[in-house]
Amino acid sequence: MAERIFGHIPNVYEGDVFESRLILSHNKVHRPTQAGISGSQKEGADSIVLSGGYEDDQDLGDVIIYTGHGGRDHNSKKQITDQTLSDKNLALALNCQNGLPVRVIRGANHKSKFSPEYGYRYDGLYKVVKYWKKKGKSGFNVWLFRLEKVDTDNRFGFEVKEETPGYSKTSRTAVTQQRINRDYSLTIKVKEIYNSHCQVCNVKLYTSAGFYAEAAHIKPLGKPHNGPDTLDNLLCLCPNHHVMFDFGGFTINDDFSLTGLEGELNINTEHKINKEFIRYHREHFAI
Amino acid sequence: MAERIFGHIPNVYEGDVFESRLILSHNKVHRPTQAGISGSQKEGADSIVLSGGYEDDQDLGDVIIYTGHGGRDHNSKKQITDQTLSDKNLALALNCQNGLPVRVIRGANHKSKFSPEYGYRYDGLYKVVKYWKKKGKSGFNVWLFRLEKVDTDNRFGFEVKEETPGYSKTSRTAVTQQRINRDYSLTIKVKEIYNSHCQVCNVKLYTSAGFYAEAAHIKPLGKPHNGPDTLDNLLCLCPNHHVMFDFGGFTINDDFSLTGLEGELNINTEHKINKEFIRYHREHFAI
Repeated sequence: MAERIFGHIPNVYEGDVFESRLILSHNKVHRPTQAGISGSQKEGADSIVLSGGYEDDQDLGDVIIYTGHGGRDHNSKKQITDQTLSDKNLALALNCQNGLPVRVIRGANHKSKFSPEYGYRYDGLYKVVKYWKKKGKSGFNVWLFRLEKVDTDNRFGFEVKEETPGYSKTSRTAVTQQRINRDYSLTIKVKEIYNSHCQVCNVKLYTSAGFYAEAAHIKPLGKPHNGPDTLDNLLCLCPNHHVMFDFGGFTINDDFSLTGLEGELNINTEHKINKEFIRYHREHFAI
Repeated sequence: MAERIFGHIPNVYEGDVFESRLILSHNKVHRPTQAGISGSQKEGADSIVLSGGYEDDQDLGDVIIYTGHGGRDHNSKKQITDQTLSDKNLALALNCQNGLPVRVIRGANHKSKFSPEYGYRYDGLYKVVKYWKKKGKSGFNVWLFRLEKVDTDNRFGFEVKEETPGYSKTSRTAVTQQRINRDYSLTIKVKEIYNSHCQVCNVKLYTSAGFYAEAAHIKPLGKPHNGPDTLDNLLCLCPNHHVMFDFGGFTINDDFSLTGLEGELNINTEHKINKEFIRYHREHFAI
């Protein structure tokens, strides 16, 4: 099989419509003719087609909440067993970890106001910014992925308004402004409280520009988690433990001991952590 | 002083021209009326004005190579002592580490084909993707910063062509395509060679989607470093040591021992590292 192409396909532009899955595939925009996700567990997912929809899906234009695959009854489409983070779901999780974009194609039968009138429309590149699991109405787990448009030119002609405290209500380029409108003073504050030491392993990294640590939200900001941008929802972590935390390598118990890692979280008396957020993280990010 | 604003200023749009530094300041786009960089050592730099130019500066539109401040004779503008990574230079380095964008304003006396005819034009947000030092023609060190446009709408009406092996010669959105056109198979390869163990500390991180490690270029890709996208220019590192490496926390000696950290680099016989790149990194990234 030819090498998998990540990113734009040469000579294919956002807004291009393809009549069928076959023609879409022939143009290399989305190679599989039936499956909704194109990808491998080794490299990641290069493209996805949105068509049909599932109850947890949300299409906000520049932001997409996308349900993973697997565990559904073929006829009724109902969830009949847990989804696992394997195969195509694992591919998308790899995009998230490796920062690779995925081509998004919307089909006419996609249940969204952004669907094309007919055929399949190439809608550009999205990043997978987060993945987590959720117990659906069926009682079974599904894996969900939050996608955010890369290099948006506001082609949908409106702005994504995230109605969450700390977010500006309007944003010219939704993705950039969301990142910027985090309360930056809080990230400075939490790093000051711990003097840039990681709350998990106590390491303090140094660079040419001083010490380095990362402020990590426990319950993620943004839809659909809507965690608050407040000190009680923040941790001061080294990059290693930030990656492990965000990607479900370990979780924090109510007594602040850890599952998945030895030891316990170091907490400063100045820093009150809300256990509701730790619980949310446990429920949604652990395998 | 009012809280520093990172990102776009409400009601100010790319392309807006301001007649003078005073008016620019009044509109909060760039608060200082004389200094070229607005920022603090604690938070980072919120805006910079490009006017005049220095010999190492390059303005490619969506990519800017920007010389830091300090060490110049006030009258002749010649470099008369080393620049240090402090004050405004440190502020820009913080943007790089923390991923914060900086507003870029081009002045009419900026020596570039992108300069406005008159006044000062707001040209949007850029990320500081790399910073390093270089011995200038004067014999003294200057600090340099590579800025890349965020959310580009190709307002300069052309494409940045990076004439480097491994890059596609034309790119619709320069920044995205550069990241994508890295040889992704090599990042997989170097992680396979070391089985996702960090070459510095041997740690192997686990997540819900498998093991996690990062492939780091030794001599950076892209102008002006133009390091190649090849296996002999790659390391397999944990996020902590990747941050420290990129931001000058340690360097690698010719015998693969380390300066700035205890120990030495673990090298697999399958992996030949080119010492020229290690030397380049030492010269340009160490404090």
